[in-house]
Amino acid sequence: MYRKQMIGVIGDSSIDNDQERKIAYEVGYLIAKNNFVLVCGGRAGVMEEACRGALDAGGLTVAILPSSTKEEANPYCNIVIPTGLGWTRNSLVALSSDILICIGGKSGTLSEIAFGWMYNKPIIAFSKESGINGWSAKVAGKKIDDRRNDSIYSVKTAEEAINIAKKFINQKTI
Amino acid sequence: MYRKQMIGVIGDSSIDNDQERKIAYEVGYLIAKNNFVLVCGGRAGVMEEACRGALDAGGLTVAILPSSTKEEANPYCNIVIPTGLGWTRNSLVALSSDILICIGGKSGTLSEIAFGWMYNKPIIAFSKESGINGWSAKVAGKKIDDRRNDSIYSVKTAEEAINIAKKFINQKTI
Amino acid sequence: MYRKQMIGVIGDSSIDNDQERKIAYEVGYLIAKNNFVLVCGGRAGVMEEACRGALDAGGLTVAILPSSTKEEANPYCNIVIPTGLGWTRNSLVALSSDILICIGGKSGTLSEIAFGWMYNKPIIAFSKESGINGWSAKVAGKKIDDRRNDSIYSVKTAEEAINIAKKFINQKTI
Amino acid sequence: MYRKQMIGVIGDSSIDNDQERKIAYEVGYLIAKNNFVLVCGGRAGVMEEACRGALDAGGLTVAILPSSTKEEANPYCNIVIPTGLGWTRNSLVALSSDILICIGGKSGTLSEIAFGWMYNKPIIAFSKESGINGWSAKVAGKKIDDRRNDSIYSVKTAEEAINIAKKFINQKTI
Repeated sequence: MYRKQMIGVIGDSSIDNDQERKIAYEVGYLIAKNNFVLVCGGRAGVMEEACRGALDAGGLTVAILPSSTKEEANPYCNIVIPTGLGWTRNSLVALSSDILICIGGKSGTLSEIAFGWMYNKPIIAFSKESGINGWSAKVAGKKIDDRRNDSIYSVKTAEEAINIAKKFINQKTI
Repeated sequence: MYRKQMIGVIGDSSIDNDQERKIAYEVGYLIAKNNFVLVCGGRAGVMEEACRGALDAGGLTVAILPSSTKEEANPYCNIVIPTGLGWTRNSLVALSSDILICIGGKSGTLSEIAFGWMYNKPIIAFSKESGINGWSAKVAGKKIDDRRNDSIYSVKTAEEAINIAKKFINQKTI
Repeated sequence: MYRKQMIGVIGDSSIDNDQERKIAYEVGYLIAKNNFVLVCGGRAGVMEEACRGALDAGGLTVAILPSSTKEEANPYCNIVIPTGLGWTRNSLVALSSDILICIGGKSGTLSEIAFGWMYNKPIIAFSKESGINGWSAKVAGKKIDDRRNDSIYSVKTAEEAINIAKKFINQKTI
Repeated sequence: MYRKQMIGVIGDSSIDNDQERKIAYEVGYLIAKNNFVLVCGGRAGVMEEACRGALDAGGLTVAILPSSTKEEANPYCNIVIPTGLGWTRNSLVALSSDILICIGGKSGTLSEIAFGWMYNKPIIAFSKESGINGWSAKVAGKKIDDRRNDSIYSVKTAEEAINIAKKFINQKTI
């Protein structure tokens, strides 16, 4: 099987605070260190920090852009998919991810959380206790609706997030 | 100007309780009575009740379907757009609506609320006090993020919802 | 059954010659006169002339736009769906049409012909003998591939086009 | 710059003849040998042979699928993007490719050629003389419309195709 396991990182295109910057970088770094491919919306902010971390760990990054040209991608994207779909592309970020890790985020991130939930993807969200605000803090530990038995995983550190992600991917392999 | 003003109705494809059924029908009825076109996702539940109400008032209904064929539409849809985009079509429901009215709803509705907010559409949501649950009750009176100065309008009756909608559309005309 | 039968008109956003302008208007006029809804890409040129004809005959017009706002629509569109998908929306024009009528056209129209063929829609194209150039003249009377038993209908007048369209829609009703 | 240059391979999901199979494999092999990433629709036939060739040369393959799950991908795809868009995804295959190489093909491939032309991508097509049929043979050496000054490149061998592709990518780098 040559197919790579892909972890999606969702969050805002601007950085809210230093803790968000640090966590985004670490999550990206650990995704790559564990041989997962990082997929994201390819823009600035949380996405860029995560991509930077992934490349520092020798990883591979995939950007699913709103625009129809590749220039919009942050400099740390290897594989750039310019969808030309505008924000509608948020649905494709969720679909492409085997697991989603949510770091902060505004309305765009919220749409990705909603799609991730509809598409039955495991979702991991940084809680308020991690120093992260935005929608990840609001949904951490919660359910989006009653369609699923599980909840959104609530985490405080990048290590915790990756450990949960690894459990899911091992289950799938066995 | 031959372009019609379009009001989007978003909510779940199943009905949560009798109050939700009643409100969905009334909202659809009043949309049509006030010469607006009703646009929705075209499926069952809240969407179907709203379409039924709109046709009873002599109105016109537009369905933006996930499927690639027209059979999925509820029987009260006049203009059927089968997008073939799956849930990704939720973004197009928000884009097509000049104003959004949210009645209950699960994760799909939440994605439409998030897109409506991103696309700068006025959003009107039925509050808990109206007897409605789901995401409309959760977001009524709130902001999705700090990008906009306004909040989601919180309403308790179909009349209230339509009165707010009419204010927006008059502003635009003047 | 409240669902309207919808005929798609595809062609370029600029007018090639006076004959193209005349035919586009007549096709739109006859679509409406026969109680079909006209659906198109909503832009200028062939689309605008067809919409103008449809409104002159008291009809209803639906625009499926590339842009994410409604301003791009030509002035003769009643129901405007701003998809925000760019040219990717061409696929949705084909999906929404029960039958496609092709008048001239460049690469965009060619993509709509290809999608119409994939989606198994009857396609009617104006031939070179009608005074029309572009892709409709190239594909009139031809097959796009061997997946379908039928061919693209070749027509010389708007009346011919509508008569073929009516045959298909009657078959469906019976 | 960490961004990879991506070459799209477009063609049918079934193989027309042995020559088509051979050329698809060779094109994929040479794309990878020259350090380009191969992007395609991810399905069987021409796409699968090209992916197989690319992996044999140690390359990286990207699949942009119509379906909303990853199972539809052929076994030689590394990065799988399940768009859930149906055939509408053809537009994204064209957008993601810096250059397109067309090998045979039916209506789906024709839509990708049309989009590639709209998106101003260099297009290389295998001619009838190469032993290839379908739309690549029909458009090789031709223009889709008069919007562009160039034509679709007509080639007879995989080496020729890659040499043209390399010229474009060098131009861009300088």
